Amino acid sequence: MKDLAIVATGGTIDKVYFDAKSRYEVGPPNVEKVLGELNLSITFTVTSLMRKDSLDMTREDRKLLHDHIATEPCPRILVTHGTDTMVKTARSLLSLKDKTIVFTGALEPALFKTSDAVFNIGCAVGAVQALPFGVYIVMNAKVFPADRVVKNLSLNRFEQISP
Amino acid sequence: MKDLAIVATGGTIDKVYFDAKSRYEVGPPNVEKVLGELNLSITFTVTSLMRKDSLDMTREDRKLLHDHIATEPCPRILVTHGTDTMVKTARSLLSLKDKTIVFTGALEPALFKTSDAVFNIGCAVGAVQALPFGVYIVMNAKVFPADRVVKNLSLNRFEQISP
Amino acid sequence: MKDLAIVATGGTIDKVYFDAKSRYEVGPPNVEKVLGELNLSITFTVTSLMRKDSLDMTREDRKLLHDHIATEPCPRILVTHGTDTMVKTARSLLSLKDKTIVFTGALEPALFKTSDAVFNIGCAVGAVQALPFGVYIVMNAKVFPADRVVKNLSLNRFEQISP
Amino acid sequence: MKDLAIVATGGTIDKVYFDAKSRYEVGPPNVEKVLGELNLSITFTVTSLMRKDSLDMTREDRKLLHDHIATEPCPRILVTHGTDTMVKTARSLLSLKDKTIVFTGALEPALFKTSDAVFNIGCAVGAVQALPFGVYIVMNAKVFPADRVVKNLSLNRFEQISP
Repeated sequence: MKDLAIVATGGTIDKVYFDAKSRYEVGPPNVEKVLGELNLSITFTVTSLMRKDSLDMTREDRKLLHDHIATEPCPRILVTHGTDTMVKTARSLLSLKDKTIVFTGALEPALFKTSDAVFNIGCAVGAVQALPFGVYIVMNAKVFPADRVVKNLSLNRFEQISP
Repeated sequence: MKDLAIVATGGTIDKVYFDAKSRYEVGPPNVEKVLGELNLSITFTVTSLMRKDSLDMTREDRKLLHDHIATEPCPRILVTHGTDTMVKTARSLLSLKDKTIVFTGALEPALFKTSDAVFNIGCAVGAVQALPFGVYIVMNAKVFPADRVVKNLSLNRFEQISP
Repeated sequence: MKDLAIVATGGTIDKVYFDAKSRYEVGPPNVEKVLGELNLSITFTVTSLMRKDSLDMTREDRKLLHDHIATEPCPRILVTHGTDTMVKTARSLLSLKDKTIVFTGALEPALFKTSDAVFNIGCAVGAVQALPFGVYIVMNAKVFPADRVVKNLSLNRFEQISP
Repeated sequence: MKDLAIVATGGTIDKVYFDAKSRYEVGPPNVEKVLGELNLSITFTVTSLMRKDSLDMTREDRKLLHDHIATEPCPRILVTHGTDTMVKTARSLLSLKDKTIVFTGALEPALFKTSDAVFNIGCAVGAVQALPFGVYIVMNAKVFPADRVVKNLSLNRFEQISP
């Protein structure tokens, strides 16, 4: 078994640009590219489960993610996800009690010079190895339990709330 | 009290280049620059305790670091350090039992396009919030207890050993 | 008088990203940012004449650009412009005989890690100082007279044609 | 015949870092890497003639460069060179009257995030296609005839002088 199972669902971190349409679309998982450029002492798998803007995620998508993780033998899971509904999806996994599940993503596409993607993936990879079983969001350098976090839209960052 | 106390000691992560001498020297802490470019939800202090290549660290330097951390009120400590003697310094702190102390650094200077510095700092920041009290090294995406890690010089990475 | 008058009209080089809409829009001139990060021995002005996707440029926009350059006292002009209609706009200036006018732009937004913007601006700045009066396009590392170039859409690059 | 013959001689632009010695050494030509990442409409050759810090260049090295360029059939030559003696080497080629020879280099190694290498190579590639026969230095965004330029060491940039 690998040290870590990574599940990519899409979101800003994976956005690519199609000039013809002047639009972003969600491309293949950038977490694989980021980790591939480093000299790692951990092993991992990457599953690209869907490529969705998180505003487009449905109840069925969340069910699919839940069932995928429920049957994943590796107890350490990293989920990359869009930020707008990251909290909602994370909370939909709270019934999974026998794994450490960490969500992360990026506020700017990984292909931007100023993206937070590399730092966030690092932060999540560090946290997932150390946290007890449970569901967490790691964004803005902070580890949040999934039931105590919201995205502050005006400040464009995640913040802790009372449970 | 801040969420995190960062102590910079030098090492490759902080190396800058002086053209006249075609030599690197250790500059101010790059951890401050890396974190300063992000939109954080944690608070922290940075103390530049020394600016040393880790091969030049002495018993007195390690004593200074030990005493600094012993009297630091914040229980979560991140130490940036050169990689060549990182393990030795980390082990010199094993008597400090009431703090979570995480060492990280970089195999390439932070000012390089290909540096591992941003990822490593992220990984360490994620781990330090989640680990129990103890001394750890976070390098090559892996969290190592300080007494179970060596730097593999030929592969230029840190690896786990039996305690 | 400055060494160089830069006129920004928009295009991919200046595109910024608004997450809420998952769309690019044209922002302030990136040529100013690129040159501002360098230690230059030339002086220049930057005029942001419009912020347009080049597909949206009208006859009136081209008239405005023509008249602006016609009255510009500096004989060395660099125009940043979207690539899709760059050739058309350049040819609309062929009646201006007493200036060296060089168009450039980017196939990827300047904020991308892999953007050609910095190289292209460099290439145009080098060429504009050396070329005789006339209208040119500098893209894909090549200096093209405006009447001997097309954008090859399938290869996404500019190519020479017979006049 | 290719559009451009590039001759690499070393200098800061090609410096790589060997951690064991905390020293830079001159590596393979970075101009090849920079141009290789772009989608070009020009063809070129790259000859790595020597790998020298420019302070170490001897009379014999300059003779070798002179003779190499004298016998090069392509009339457009780009030379990458260290900055400290770039002017001296450029002037040693002033007897070559039937080619356009442009020198460039970088004040920071190309592998640095903040390097001027990509811009400078762009600037030189643009200028070499447009300049009449002669020997030039293209640095700090400016095209200088080789007999009218010095490196201002305190400002770390090239400046024009009277011939």
